Amino acid sequence: MNLGTVSSGVVESRVSTRFDRRLARILDHATAIFCEKGYERASMRDLSRACGMSLAGLYYYFESKQRLLYLVERESFERVMDLLSERLNGVADPEARVRVFIQNHVEFFLARPKVMKVLSHEDDVLEGELGTEIAAIKRSYYRACADLVECLKLDRNQRFNSRNAVMALFGMINWLYTWYNPTVDGSPAVLAQDFADIFLRGVYSGT
Amino acid sequence: MNLGTVSSGVVESRVSTRFDRRLARILDHATAIFCEKGYERASMRDLSRACGMSLAGLYYYFESKQRLLYLVERESFERVMDLLSERLNGVADPEARVRVFIQNHVEFFLARPKVMKVLSHEDDVLEGELGTEIAAIKRSYYRACADLVECLKLDRNQRFNSRNAVMALFGMINWLYTWYNPTVDGSPAVLAQDFADIFLRGVYSGT
Repeated sequence: MNLGTVSSGVVESRVSTRFDRRLARILDHATAIFCEKGYERASMRDLSRACGMSLAGLYYYFESKQRLLYLVERESFERVMDLLSERLNGVADPEARVRVFIQNHVEFFLARPKVMKVLSHEDDVLEGELGTEIAAIKRSYYRACADLVECLKLDRNQRFNSRNAVMALFGMINWLYTWYNPTVDGSPAVLAQDFADIFLRGVYSGT
Repeated sequence: MNLGTVSSGVVESRVSTRFDRRLARILDHATAIFCEKGYERASMRDLSRACGMSLAGLYYYFESKQRLLYLVERESFERVMDLLSERLNGVADPEARVRVFIQNHVEFFLARPKVMKVLSHEDDVLEGELGTEIAAIKRSYYRACADLVECLKLDRNQRFNSRNAVMALFGMINWLYTWYNPTVDGSPAVLAQDFADIFLRGVYSGT
């Protein structure tokens, strides 16, 4: 083993971690502004003020408002998919895997209600390459869910309309940002379980 | 019976019908602009152009962009609720009544996908009295659904969490505007039936 490499790896990971943390904070501030004002009304000046950066610095590092929104979206989908992979690791039962998907999505996004609102409201804002890239990431997240539901369908010998089922599920769990109130609705984990029960019973036709 | 009154009533209803139609067309154009540009980016000039009215005329009749959005929202909720009352008339079975709600909502809004998007995206735009009034209309629509679900729960002796169930249902049926494609997804009536099956099986716990 080459200690030099290890050491450089550690340093690199520390540097990247510090940088990542700073980037994550900036994206959090940008998300809050997009959420509060809407993408259209949010100006680069609002964003620079919220992020604690000079306007010149914001343009230097992020180039444009489009790019900031792109990073907010990419970061969210990448993280929720990474977490999903981790949590699915070692889970074999198809129904349990669908439950993991629901649990992961609900817990991830309820911890980030502003992200949820921005993703829903600014869904069609990104154009050109950035828009294409985000659309591809969203498709792979959709696909991940659809594959889990498809495996369940085969495993349980069901005949439901897969697209309707997956979209019904996304509707249930994405609409949460409009109504979830932690003081009334209890923990995300319990809510996710209730939704998983509704969804699973809902798609099983009892035959 | 006072014929004068009857006749005046007929004239009045004809006038109001013609006026209503004109108003409905203007609201359709306004909805299209709000949908395409978003409320914030849509200007009264865009709206006057789309509605085929002078800018002065638009201000004269509608006063403000807020009021136009308010009318779009009020008109939609009032109509969907009127239709719901008509369709529920004579339906006694609690499960059938929930099915009528789902059918009515899905058919009404899938015939108006732009309205669906505007209602979702501009949910929190209206302020002051207009905002309060729309919030009250929405609450009564929510209440109408929640009451139907509550009756079903009692009738079937179920113990599900009513708020989660109603919100899961609204999520399923409101999310439609983001994905429904008539050429792929078939008729709203069939889709509504599929969603009703998923929802009903989903909330019945089998006990």
